[in-house]
Amino acid sequence: MTFKSDIEIAREARKQPIAQIGEKLGIPSEHLLPFGHDKAKISQDFIKAQANRENGKLILVTAINPTPAGEGKTTTTVGLGDGLNAIGKNAAICIREPSLGPCFGMKGGAAGGGYAQVVPMEDINLHFTGDFHAITSAHNLLSAMIDNHVYWGNAEDIDIRRITWRRVLDMNDRALRSIVTSLGGATNGFPREAGFDITVASEIMAILCLAEDLEDLQRRLGNIIVAYRRDKTPVYCRDIKADGAMTVLLQQAMQPNLVQTLENNPAFIHGGPFANIAHGCNSVIATKTALKLADYVVTEAGFGADLGAEKFFDIKCRKAGLSPNAVVVVATIRALKMNGGVAKEDLGAENVDALKKGCANLARHLENIKKFGVPAVVAINHFVTDSDAEVDALKTFVEGEGAKAILCQHWEHGSEGTKALAEHVVDMIDNFNGKFSPLYEDNLGLADKIEKIAKEIYRADEVVMDKKVLTQLKNWEKAGYGDLPICMAKTQYSFTTDPNMRGAPTGHSIPVREVRLSAGAGFVVAICGEIMTMPGLPKVPSAEAIKLDDAGQIEGLF
Amino acid sequence: MTFKSDIEIAREARKQPIAQIGEKLGIPSEHLLPFGHDKAKISQDFIKAQANRENGKLILVTAINPTPAGEGKTTTTVGLGDGLNAIGKNAAICIREPSLGPCFGMKGGAAGGGYAQVVPMEDINLHFTGDFHAITSAHNLLSAMIDNHVYWGNAEDIDIRRITWRRVLDMNDRALRSIVTSLGGATNGFPREAGFDITVASEIMAILCLAEDLEDLQRRLGNIIVAYRRDKTPVYCRDIKADGAMTVLLQQAMQPNLVQTLENNPAFIHGGPFANIAHGCNSVIATKTALKLADYVVTEAGFGADLGAEKFFDIKCRKAGLSPNAVVVVATIRALKMNGGVAKEDLGAENVDALKKGCANLARHLENIKKFGVPAVVAINHFVTDSDAEVDALKTFVEGEGAKAILCQHWEHGSEGTKALAEHVVDMIDNFNGKFSPLYEDNLGLADKIEKIAKEIYRADEVVMDKKVLTQLKNWEKAGYGDLPICMAKTQYSFTTDPNMRGAPTGHSIPVREVRLSAGAGFVVAICGEIMTMPGLPKVPSAEAIKLDDAGQIEGLF
Repeated sequence: MTFKSDIEIAREARKQPIAQIGEKLGIPSEHLLPFGHDKAKISQDFIKAQANRENGKLILVTAINPTPAGEGKTTTTVGLGDGLNAIGKNAAICIREPSLGPCFGMKGGAAGGGYAQVVPMEDINLHFTGDFHAITSAHNLLSAMIDNHVYWGNAEDIDIRRITWRRVLDMNDRALRSIVTSLGGATNGFPREAGFDITVASEIMAILCLAEDLEDLQRRLGNIIVAYRRDKTPVYCRDIKADGAMTVLLQQAMQPNLVQTLENNPAFIHGGPFANIAHGCNSVIATKTALKLADYVVTEAGFGADLGAEKFFDIKCRKAGLSPNAVVVVATIRALKMNGGVAKEDLGAENVDALKKGCANLARHLENIKKFGVPAVVAINHFVTDSDAEVDALKTFVEGEGAKAILCQHWEHGSEGTKALAEHVVDMIDNFNGKFSPLYEDNLGLADKIEKIAKEIYRADEVVMDKKVLTQLKNWEKAGYGDLPICMAKTQYSFTTDPNMRGAPTGHSIPVREVRLSAGAGFVVAICGEIMTMPGLPKVPSAEAIKLDDAGQIEGLF
Repeated sequence: MTFKSDIEIAREARKQPIAQIGEKLGIPSEHLLPFGHDKAKISQDFIKAQANRENGKLILVTAINPTPAGEGKTTTTVGLGDGLNAIGKNAAICIREPSLGPCFGMKGGAAGGGYAQVVPMEDINLHFTGDFHAITSAHNLLSAMIDNHVYWGNAEDIDIRRITWRRVLDMNDRALRSIVTSLGGATNGFPREAGFDITVASEIMAILCLAEDLEDLQRRLGNIIVAYRRDKTPVYCRDIKADGAMTVLLQQAMQPNLVQTLENNPAFIHGGPFANIAHGCNSVIATKTALKLADYVVTEAGFGADLGAEKFFDIKCRKAGLSPNAVVVVATIRALKMNGGVAKEDLGAENVDALKKGCANLARHLENIKKFGVPAVVAINHFVTDSDAEVDALKTFVEGEGAKAILCQHWEHGSEGTKALAEHVVDMIDNFNGKFSPLYEDNLGLADKIEKIAKEIYRADEVVMDKKVLTQLKNWEKAGYGDLPICMAKTQYSFTTDPNMRGAPTGHSIPVREVRLSAGAGFVVAICGEIMTMPGLPKVPSAEAIKLDDAGQIEGLF
């Protein structure tokens, strides 16, 4: 049995003109700003005019802790969206925009896979509608204006050793992680240590994804802390007078992007912040717009449920006033077996015992989701190597946990493979009487919030924070930031801070090495481990094989 | 008398849908890739299909040496295009894309002015269709791959002190001119001196503007010299295997952009290389496409005619096989008076004597253009302070030079103000029997080419090149680069290398400080003076005043 590659399937797609996709959602074509014939942005005016409409139902797709075996969260999000449409519902999906830089390293594209994809996949993975470029420009304008401020007299008395605002590029470039700028003499400014992050790590990306509208965007941009004065007081972006021009640069990027799935169903792809130092969800404005226009909206969050779902609930939903109605936890037999101790090269062989052992990871995520008051279902993202015995064992296990696991074959069959999941999700939403609530209250102390997440979600025995961290948190509380939510930056591979501790470990402690205030985005980042904000390229970057073929089609990107 | 601002006029424009503009040129809408409702790229397939059509007539708009008084080259290009359409001709214009970075410094937009503008002006001056972002990405991908190559073992034996390929951002950021990268330990690579230029200074920008098609683009990208080995031999982009992925990143950027003038006539805006270290003309692909679709094509070149027109003829036209049919030299009474010694603050007062004195600058440009075998006319870009006596004196002077000067009032009246110029240009083309030829032959020695330009165009007595420069040129000739044209990098304010020497100086010498090989673009740059490739921001950057007003319209950009 041979399968077509993702790109082969994508190229065979019978795309509809984007105006036709907009029509399905009731968007008149004059409110679609086209980018080519198959991509569009939705106008601000149209979005504003929908404010009083009722919201559809919001479904989160999350996953067990990721393993090198892969889970297929985006693929399942696409598949479920198509499945809901296939059973006659008016559904849309909301996913994140992929980053350009990693495409040239080793990560492939991020537009689903098999028969559950969004198209045009090449465009989506390359420049798309220019959102990331706009963020790069806005970010670096602020950087240039900070150094320029210092150069022309430093009226704000910025301590150049304490400029926290770095620069960004949408590129994997390790040489830029740590640099010294303004060398070469007086006309180039004051030499100082600086560096670049990848664009998705920019606080502006998180801001764009949390802002309600352009006004809120500018307010948040103005609130960014860019440096500290010699007297240790913070210097804000608005002190540098950059927030207005940055908003202008981001005006178009704030409008959600509309594309389509292979089955011609509407897909919003907008925003893509890091899932460690940021919250890892697509934009609030896209999700809210989708909820006004569709009866069911399927969205995803980064990494596993311990990080992704928790932040989706506690940051995105809390701050945007969203009330999610259901959760789908994606698991694969292969990844569960890895969680049960099987090595990657042995995953092809049936191993029901390892599967059962690995299910402890899934069980804990299901338990955690209950704490937010939202009903959950497990989607088994089917792989050809899965045996019937394994699938049955997984189903039985999940039933024992009081939930249901449904075999999904969207990768191979598109919506035909997710109709059962779609029916169940609709049922679950119709019959559930609970109510979503975040894990902690706004007014809980910052340190207590961290502790609550660590103990109730990660099941740690203790949180280790030294005095410096605790003092910092106290100072932020005094400065009025006490009601912010926490954004945990931790390895995605484990409930603990050790990426090799798979399954459902207990008895561990969570050390918080550092805390950072993202005053513009509106959260406090608690860093529990090494966080890489500028990746490097591998020895043989995928870029070496990327080229146009004789027909002008892109080769090697996926 | 009060005048509306450029932005006020632009906002009142009755834009036609871009498909309608395309229709005027015979482009079917499926071959227009829309960006919003008022911008589009033209498909490669459509362009290829026009190859056997006859070409229209090509008109270059150039100018006297620029002064702070302004000349209005782009404005006159737009005005003449509209004027040609107004007298019943099928005409299009081809201008350069403005750079984003300088918009936030002190330079205003670059989309014409008054009633001779291209729209949508805000978009054109901001992200437009993403071409500059694509160039930035392609450039920095190569940069990252070079450092990555060194990091993973340096198989090509690159001398890290001799990496000539820098990085770029479309931003005025002096802090990035001279930096040290890869600090912070072994995982970040080998520390070395590096730096950023502004995107328009990238050799990729020059390549995009000279490439015939995507194949030619990739070939030229592969030919870029990025570094030298420890044995001094050059390392090419293709040795780093980056050319394929760079071509993919630039695929869409290679397609010319179509917009419209205020009078709904077609305008191609595509590419915008530096006019010093590069050739300063819009893209060959846009010009050639326009020539297939319109009977008259009006285009512009950077700076004054000594730099702009010479490079247009000797680099762009020579290499692209274009045969220009007429030249318009833009002059203003004010700028001529400045060339005649009047200070900027005294320009409002009538001063016929100073005007006559300044005309020496104009006369020399007219003489120079004759050497290329193309007929010329002077366009007097009218300002409200110009007196009748001054205008008459200028007309008489130009008649004495065997040419004609025509008063143009497009800024105030649109095409009504350029009909006379348009009629004259058509006449001139119909009645001229000469033939364009470049200033020098391909097979002249590189040093001799520099000398010929300096003596015949700049009227220098001598060229000063030290032994190192001469040896370098000889070595390039031996390496097979001897037939390349020269790209002079010199101040735009004077025929000499001293920006304060206005008028028509003689007896000067031209020192060539340095020569650089742009092996991908296909020219040798002769640097005669300080060339700034990364601007800085002024004390009060215009960015501080740029913002969205309550209606969501951009304030402060112009």
